[in-house]
Amino acid sequence: MEFGFLNGDGPSSLLVLSSRIRIARNLKDYPFPYRATETLRKEILEKTRQAVQTEEALKILQFMELDSFSALEKQVLLENHLVSPNFIQESKGKGIFLHLPTTISMMVNEEDHLRVQCLTSGLNLEKGWSILNRLDDLLENHLSFAFHESWGYLSAFPTNLGTGLRASVLLHLPALVFLQAMPGLIQSLNQMGIVVRGFYGEGTESQGYFFQISNAFSLGPSEEEIVSRMSTTANQVIQQELESRERMKKNQPVLIIDRIWRSFSILKSARLINSAEAMEHLSLTRMGVQMGILPEIPVKSLNELMRMTRSANLQKELKEEVDALKRDEMRADYLRNSLANFS
Amino acid sequence: MEFGFLNGDGPSSLLVLSSRIRIARNLKDYPFPYRATETLRKEILEKTRQAVQTEEALKILQFMELDSFSALEKQVLLENHLVSPNFIQESKGKGIFLHLPTTISMMVNEEDHLRVQCLTSGLNLEKGWSILNRLDDLLENHLSFAFHESWGYLSAFPTNLGTGLRASVLLHLPALVFLQAMPGLIQSLNQMGIVVRGFYGEGTESQGYFFQISNAFSLGPSEEEIVSRMSTTANQVIQQELESRERMKKNQPVLIIDRIWRSFSILKSARLINSAEAMEHLSLTRMGVQMGILPEIPVKSLNELMRMTRSANLQKELKEEVDALKRDEMRADYLRNSLANFS
Repeated sequence: MEFGFLNGDGPSSLLVLSSRIRIARNLKDYPFPYRATETLRKEILEKTRQAVQTEEALKILQFMELDSFSALEKQVLLENHLVSPNFIQESKGKGIFLHLPTTISMMVNEEDHLRVQCLTSGLNLEKGWSILNRLDDLLENHLSFAFHESWGYLSAFPTNLGTGLRASVLLHLPALVFLQAMPGLIQSLNQMGIVVRGFYGEGTESQGYFFQISNAFSLGPSEEEIVSRMSTTANQVIQQELESRERMKKNQPVLIIDRIWRSFSILKSARLINSAEAMEHLSLTRMGVQMGILPEIPVKSLNELMRMTRSANLQKELKEEVDALKRDEMRADYLRNSLANFS
Repeated sequence: MEFGFLNGDGPSSLLVLSSRIRIARNLKDYPFPYRATETLRKEILEKTRQAVQTEEALKILQFMELDSFSALEKQVLLENHLVSPNFIQESKGKGIFLHLPTTISMMVNEEDHLRVQCLTSGLNLEKGWSILNRLDDLLENHLSFAFHESWGYLSAFPTNLGTGLRASVLLHLPALVFLQAMPGLIQSLNQMGIVVRGFYGEGTESQGYFFQISNAFSLGPSEEEIVSRMSTTANQVIQQELESRERMKKNQPVLIIDRIWRSFSILKSARLINSAEAMEHLSLTRMGVQMGILPEIPVKSLNELMRMTRSANLQKELKEEVDALKRDEMRADYLRNSLANFS
């Protein structure tokens, strides 16, 4: 699989894993998914499918019922940021439309009837928005969305009223964590109407010092304003992270160089490694590459290693379901072989 | 400095760091050191010095008053197994005679008037005994030792009555530790009249999975019997350690290979490492070399790395007294550079 949003060609792609734009839409005359019967949800699914099949430019989207995925495949979707943790809890009457090269995914019957998202590499919200804006128009040619003159697009959850738009950026902030600056940063972002979440968005933990920032509300400013504000904020946070790295390098150079080289060496030598430890070392390796401490490893490779060492992705790639110990061994082998040429 | 006992040329030298023979002797007509005044202790020191200077073959022994050593230098003596921890606690009226190539050291006014020891590389008690036996005869040409027809050589502590001889072997037993076999082994050795001690002998902890075994009593069997029994026992313990390694390799190959490669890689990449961590990784590296998991590093190099990364030795070699952080950095640099050619 080729994931466009992991190819590392976007701006600041060592510090920003990906940018994500998503819109929430609901069909007129249907109850929200949590109140709809399975029959009704299937009807919504079918209507959406017809819309996509009718519109020439949308035919690139590949449709699959969520029920057709195995538990492992659902986990793969999640690890690749294509669905929310919430979406895969229950499968009945749900479906997904995918186009991996542009990384468009549309969840049908998540919290809203449609949750359409576009992921891009690095800090590139504008690109995502332009793709999604066009996609929204094309869908609207064939579907009638619930819309209120004052409230804008209606949504099952009030924070998504208005534009129904969320702009998110997945930032790599190890230095801010090490210097214990995250609590203060989160507080000031909150005051600006920006929320900070974990690696898989809402309700998830930070992993490998990655944090997702996104707008808390979608009512009020225009889509362009939301996107532009989030870009500006992300750039400011990146700046703070870079300054923190400089400060660490200046104040405690050996400490940070030691930590980074140890991480890199463990990835290059371990014979057993679990997912959390791999994430930790890949994260420090990523920082080491950005800081010029480690050899230059392409961002695309770093992204791909991070993706591939997640448990479900690893098992899928290796085409066998294995126990945890064997998986840790395969993960270590994969990492060691992939990094063998860098030293 | 060249330490004969670390050159790695003795039998089983990957599994046995060193063998040690020591005899306890006391001069007739003088109280034991703990009851002697400083003036008397100095007299004993002087008598010994004259004996050594008079006997041509003993002139190789270099004499130094313990008072002439700095605190760092005393620590260096201890780290190099040339003195006991007890000996350097207090300096007044104490002295030491040294010959490093054969690693003979004679402490004057430790627990007994004379504690003479010879260290050899690997499992080589017989060689140590033959050197020390001759040295004892030469000393006796000029000194009258306290001797009792039934009790043999008298000593300040009852376990040293008789031959006054202790034969010790410093064994590397990580697999027996990992397989939790040490408590059982210690118990059965105790029942055979053999004591198990730490890295620096009596009252010290095990470090890097090294254990010192030695005879508990020196009264009864002849010197040759003590030496021969200790050799046999050491060989049996080595056999048990080797069998344990085989078992680990058979039952959990990846686990042990992972652990060994991680240790080796950390030594090759860390920029900061404290003495205890260095010892741990050098110990696993030593096992990895013996098991054929790691590249062949000469035993002499492994021994020298272990010696040189002890704090006092490191500081002495680097000719500067530095704080702990700087020392950890120098230790890491030393290890990294020394192991750069092995991969």
